[in-house]
Amino acid sequence: MEVHFRQKTENCEQAVELAGRHKSPAIKWSRYACMMGLLGSAMLAGATPNSGVGGGRASLSLMPIPASITRQAGVFPVSSSLTVQFATTHDAVLQEATQRALKRLEAETGLELSRKMDGVSGTFLIDVTHSAEAVQSLDEDESYTLQVNPIGIRLQAPTDLGALHGLQTLLQLVQVTPSGPSIPAVTIHDQPRFRWRGLMIDCGRHFEPLPVILRTLDGMEAVKMNVLHWHLTEDQGFRVESMRFPKLQEMGSDGQYYTQAQIREVVAYAHARGIRVVPEFDMPGHTTSWFVGYSDLASGPGPYAVQRRFGVHDPAIDPTRESTYKFLDRFIGEMADLFPDAYMHIGGDESNGKQWLANPRIRVFMHDHGIQNAAGLQVYFNQRLLKILTKYHKHMVGWDEILTPGLPKDIVVQSWRGVASLAQGAKEGYQGILSAPYYLDGMHSAETHYLADPIPDNTDLTQEQQALILGGEVCMWGEQIAPWTIDSRIWPRAAAIAERFWSPSTVRDVPDMYRRLDKMTLRLDALGLQQISGPQRLRRELAGTEAPWRLNLLLNAVEPVSFGERYTLQHTDQLTPLYGLVDAATPDPPLRHEFAEAVQRVLAQGGDSTEDRERLLHWLEEWRASDPELGLWMQQIPQLAPYSVEAHNLATLGVIGTESLSYLQGPLQAPPEWAQRALAQLQMIEQHKSLVRFVMIDSIRRMVLAAAEKGGQKK
Amino acid sequence: MEVHFRQKTENCEQAVELAGRHKSPAIKWSRYACMMGLLGSAMLAGATPNSGVGGGRASLSLMPIPASITRQAGVFPVSSSLTVQFATTHDAVLQEATQRALKRLEAETGLELSRKMDGVSGTFLIDVTHSAEAVQSLDEDESYTLQVNPIGIRLQAPTDLGALHGLQTLLQLVQVTPSGPSIPAVTIHDQPRFRWRGLMIDCGRHFEPLPVILRTLDGMEAVKMNVLHWHLTEDQGFRVESMRFPKLQEMGSDGQYYTQAQIREVVAYAHARGIRVVPEFDMPGHTTSWFVGYSDLASGPGPYAVQRRFGVHDPAIDPTRESTYKFLDRFIGEMADLFPDAYMHIGGDESNGKQWLANPRIRVFMHDHGIQNAAGLQVYFNQRLLKILTKYHKHMVGWDEILTPGLPKDIVVQSWRGVASLAQGAKEGYQGILSAPYYLDGMHSAETHYLADPIPDNTDLTQEQQALILGGEVCMWGEQIAPWTIDSRIWPRAAAIAERFWSPSTVRDVPDMYRRLDKMTLRLDALGLQQISGPQRLRRELAGTEAPWRLNLLLNAVEPVSFGERYTLQHTDQLTPLYGLVDAATPDPPLRHEFAEAVQRVLAQGGDSTEDRERLLHWLEEWRASDPELGLWMQQIPQLAPYSVEAHNLATLGVIGTESLSYLQGPLQAPPEWAQRALAQLQMIEQHKSLVRFVMIDSIRRMVLAAAEKGGQKK
Repeated sequence: MEVHFRQKTENCEQAVELAGRHKSPAIKWSRYACMMGLLGSAMLAGATPNSGVGGGRASLSLMPIPASITRQAGVFPVSSSLTVQFATTHDAVLQEATQRALKRLEAETGLELSRKMDGVSGTFLIDVTHSAEAVQSLDEDESYTLQVNPIGIRLQAPTDLGALHGLQTLLQLVQVTPSGPSIPAVTIHDQPRFRWRGLMIDCGRHFEPLPVILRTLDGMEAVKMNVLHWHLTEDQGFRVESMRFPKLQEMGSDGQYYTQAQIREVVAYAHARGIRVVPEFDMPGHTTSWFVGYSDLASGPGPYAVQRRFGVHDPAIDPTRESTYKFLDRFIGEMADLFPDAYMHIGGDESNGKQWLANPRIRVFMHDHGIQNAAGLQVYFNQRLLKILTKYHKHMVGWDEILTPGLPKDIVVQSWRGVASLAQGAKEGYQGILSAPYYLDGMHSAETHYLADPIPDNTDLTQEQQALILGGEVCMWGEQIAPWTIDSRIWPRAAAIAERFWSPSTVRDVPDMYRRLDKMTLRLDALGLQQISGPQRLRRELAGTEAPWRLNLLLNAVEPVSFGERYTLQHTDQLTPLYGLVDAATPDPPLRHEFAEAVQRVLAQGGDSTEDRERLLHWLEEWRASDPELGLWMQQIPQLAPYSVEAHNLATLGVIGTESLSYLQGPLQAPPEWAQRALAQLQMIEQHKSLVRFVMIDSIRRMVLAAAEKGGQKK
Repeated sequence: MEVHFRQKTENCEQAVELAGRHKSPAIKWSRYACMMGLLGSAMLAGATPNSGVGGGRASLSLMPIPASITRQAGVFPVSSSLTVQFATTHDAVLQEATQRALKRLEAETGLELSRKMDGVSGTFLIDVTHSAEAVQSLDEDESYTLQVNPIGIRLQAPTDLGALHGLQTLLQLVQVTPSGPSIPAVTIHDQPRFRWRGLMIDCGRHFEPLPVILRTLDGMEAVKMNVLHWHLTEDQGFRVESMRFPKLQEMGSDGQYYTQAQIREVVAYAHARGIRVVPEFDMPGHTTSWFVGYSDLASGPGPYAVQRRFGVHDPAIDPTRESTYKFLDRFIGEMADLFPDAYMHIGGDESNGKQWLANPRIRVFMHDHGIQNAAGLQVYFNQRLLKILTKYHKHMVGWDEILTPGLPKDIVVQSWRGVASLAQGAKEGYQGILSAPYYLDGMHSAETHYLADPIPDNTDLTQEQQALILGGEVCMWGEQIAPWTIDSRIWPRAAAIAERFWSPSTVRDVPDMYRRLDKMTLRLDALGLQQISGPQRLRRELAGTEAPWRLNLLLNAVEPVSFGERYTLQHTDQLTPLYGLVDAATPDPPLRHEFAEAVQRVLAQGGDSTEDRERLLHWLEEWRASDPELGLWMQQIPQLAPYSVEAHNLATLGVIGTESLSYLQGPLQAPPEWAQRALAQLQMIEQHKSLVRFVMIDSIRRMVLAAAEKGGQKK
């Protein structure tokens, strides 16, 4: 069957109208694009948020939102007669990606589609100009155009990369309706805002087995992230097999490392999903594990043991001996072969210089070379290291600390210090990646991460300088994560950040982001990610039952405290068991934004506040009624007993919330002393030292304040 | 700290008393053992079921139940001061197994224990006489003695294997109590009833990725199974990498096969868990996938393609050409190195001979060699194959069909035909393994499998012949399983069968088995098995929500129909998507036995029938009240819509059940026409063609009949 595509000019009106309903800045672009007849071009900027499209049509739930999207009338019905046709020859990457997409489509629809790639004719035409590069580059074109009409689908892209992204968009477009699965008629022109959309995983502090890495890559592909920054070495573990220096992994990893075959598998798996793998070998600090097998590399006397505690430790590579560079040359050479990407991350962070300054020989060296201080010595080290990287055709990436005079402009600075540090680098002509606002272990909400922009609206960078900001990286540090919790720490929040990196900067509608994030969570779940199933399993084990509904009542309303708070309260080290209630809690649970949005609408007396009021009451009453049974039950289980006070706090929150609602919407006025007591109770609950914190305190406080205000008081 | 163990003779009385309460045949043994002072010996037979032990002590939930167990007063409190001491030098297998056990203990208790192996002194003494054999043998001693008293734990075993089993028992003994985790004081002497306790997984028809195999081995270790029978080649796929004949996997597997590195990983992983890996290369039939790359091996002309349909196909290896044996010699030689076990399975089943008889050259060969028929030719083939296996020091295992005159007595026959066929083999002097009653794809209940015995009570085999029955194998055939459903098909039912293979034949208390199986399900879940999480994930995807409670209402009350019924109704082949409602259903769901037991007690008017009655009413009312919402909701989702009639049937079952209960326990008598109509409705629901079937129809029918009888009717 042939597929026909028409350029429907009448749809321009519709696109404008839809965009207009949402008062999006993109309306300007939409009108402009229509007028200029640019719809067929992939060179478009701007966005048309696709949320809440009215007129009897269901909302789309794409994440990230494409650069441009225009909906037309009708749908393409997905049936078992769907067949794929490639317009030109296609390589194995595209073949496999298409096959995988068909398999996902099978899973979503139950239809048998996996053998529908005859390549001769089809209702789904894939038209890619260039095959995948053997090694994916930073500059590869990732754009694509996706057109769906009632009789066919057409995916066009200049490269495989664009096609991979387009396939993901297509999968997200599928709607399950009573009349069967279908894809709404739509024209999408899409391309990323940033070229570097990364996720860093720290496998040094806690090892993550291969399946974790592979499924993480599946998740990254789904949200169009394109760099896995793999933090492979730490004081607590050396996680990559070296054939040249086998004692690195043999003595520095507790037997937990990736073999070279596994590394190759990860690199190939990533490549097949449009993802580059940038390894990090953190130097000169964070290197204790290297020294267990090779103490001569260190700046202080051995012997060394794998470090169990976290933090900044003194051991550092000795930058003053030629043997160090001989070692590094051979090591980097080996790793350069193993990791084909053009970039290699050398860390460079948190080197405290203590071991250097304590070593008389090193102090002599510094004196002889006119090096003033430890920072200067690190500059010297970096310059030597840079030569080695250059020899092996690698660009250097490092944390903020490497940004020192004398390094060439082709290095990339990854900023853990923040947007200002990043901008400073750009002003000095350095390429940069923003990470500071995307630290997942801070346990911030998806909203907080989402609104942080690598190039904020108020930037004072010139266009040229802005072009130096390559993008951003989500960071998943490893101190407090285990294979069974890592997914719940990364996802779904990373999906929201991925949208920040991909979509136009104007895409910032938080409630709509959460609406789509909920769908994305289920899509990631279906891919095999464990952000739902991991915590659920832990809850079953903690509660000792297949249906841990009691525990869920509490855990759905709390989240883990930040890395720092947990560290302070629990003094975690590498061997601390990660099976507690805090591990079974998830950051930014849906209840937070659902509760907050309901409160907001109730307080605004919106049209549907009755429904919201009932929803709030349902939660609040359930919490209130759980006392004292929940706490008593928790006291029976040693692992839960220390948290049983939280059960009582949950009930108190239920009481305060219900009372607020009565005052807000009933005939009685809130007495002043009630509000004072309620606020004091909220504060006490908030300040209670615990590994978890309630996610609806702010919202309940808002209710109390509103009730008090209605009662005629001033706060 | 030193650990002291005393032989407490006063506990014999207690052991006898406890056994006596449960009227177990083991009472005889217990008394005898005490009188003879045999408690220190590992040479004991018989069992003391450990269920429902009274006197204020919690029940134990061991699975499989040990050969002998005696409880004493007190508990050993598990605290972070627990330390492990090895009595003698210990090898890496034991070291790692102990470390893993400590990690599990950490997960269960939240205590930090993983570094508590100082080897010098400890509260947990491990005393093993012999290290693990490099290649685990069928005849290795698997016995162990485990003694726990309030101040320490002592695990003694002649070999690592016994110690591995003892560690699993110890983990199952841990009780979480309000005063903390503890292990009840106990003396256990344990050893398996059968030496061959296998699980066969068919990875030919559907490939199972490496993590599935690894977690399955974890599950097997937990229930003391000791043979992974790995069915690696089929018409539908050749799943093992051959370096010598790479076209086998390259052309015969759709790219889905295990590399040799992965095979080695599996073998090592299994060995570390006391599990042998017996590979199966099914010949001469079931070999289509071999011929895709090597059509010269076949008895008919090529070309061949990977077979998508299931069943018995004609292609078979040509047994008449010398080139066949040259090929097989090289292939078996390669595989013999890869799989170190002393046994190799050559399949031999379902060779229909059609291709042989259709080939004039083969017919000439048969005539020349005086071979009468296809069966005779298979005997010839097996004899040639046997020589090759013998050359590489492998014993031959095969399905029933290989049991033909002329094969030596050291072969092992695996019986898919049943206990009679197995016994016949034994009478002829052949060793055998029973599989027929343990086919998981029959979707029988755990109870059904559990009560099937490799050597039934009424056996007419002599003791010598009985000794030829090596044990049994659970079979997980691959036609209708996928990586996301296989766990739910294997577990927890395989755990009940594992008990059949391990525990004394007198252990047959079904309700107690189910009580312990529920605990075992959670333990397996905590290990990472996915019999709970897999179906849950599929249900989320089918329902499109994180909390698929509507779907659960139905799915908790049904199970998949048998392989054969599904095959007939759905005509599944290798490419049929396995994401449907039937895949999200689980065989023998807990509701079946819970409902059945409650009905039984209510009908018997037992002491706690009020509680049971309320429980039944809770279920029944929920089903009844779900109509019509559940069905209407299902009709909105294309994948669920075909099953929406089941929603109505569920409600009907709720109505019939509630009515039965009213008649049974209320003042009204059931009118005769009511019972007739109810039974007819039950029959209609039962006969409705569907991929799932309700699991409580029998119980509800029992209620109807009882109600009718009470009403004075005869059935």
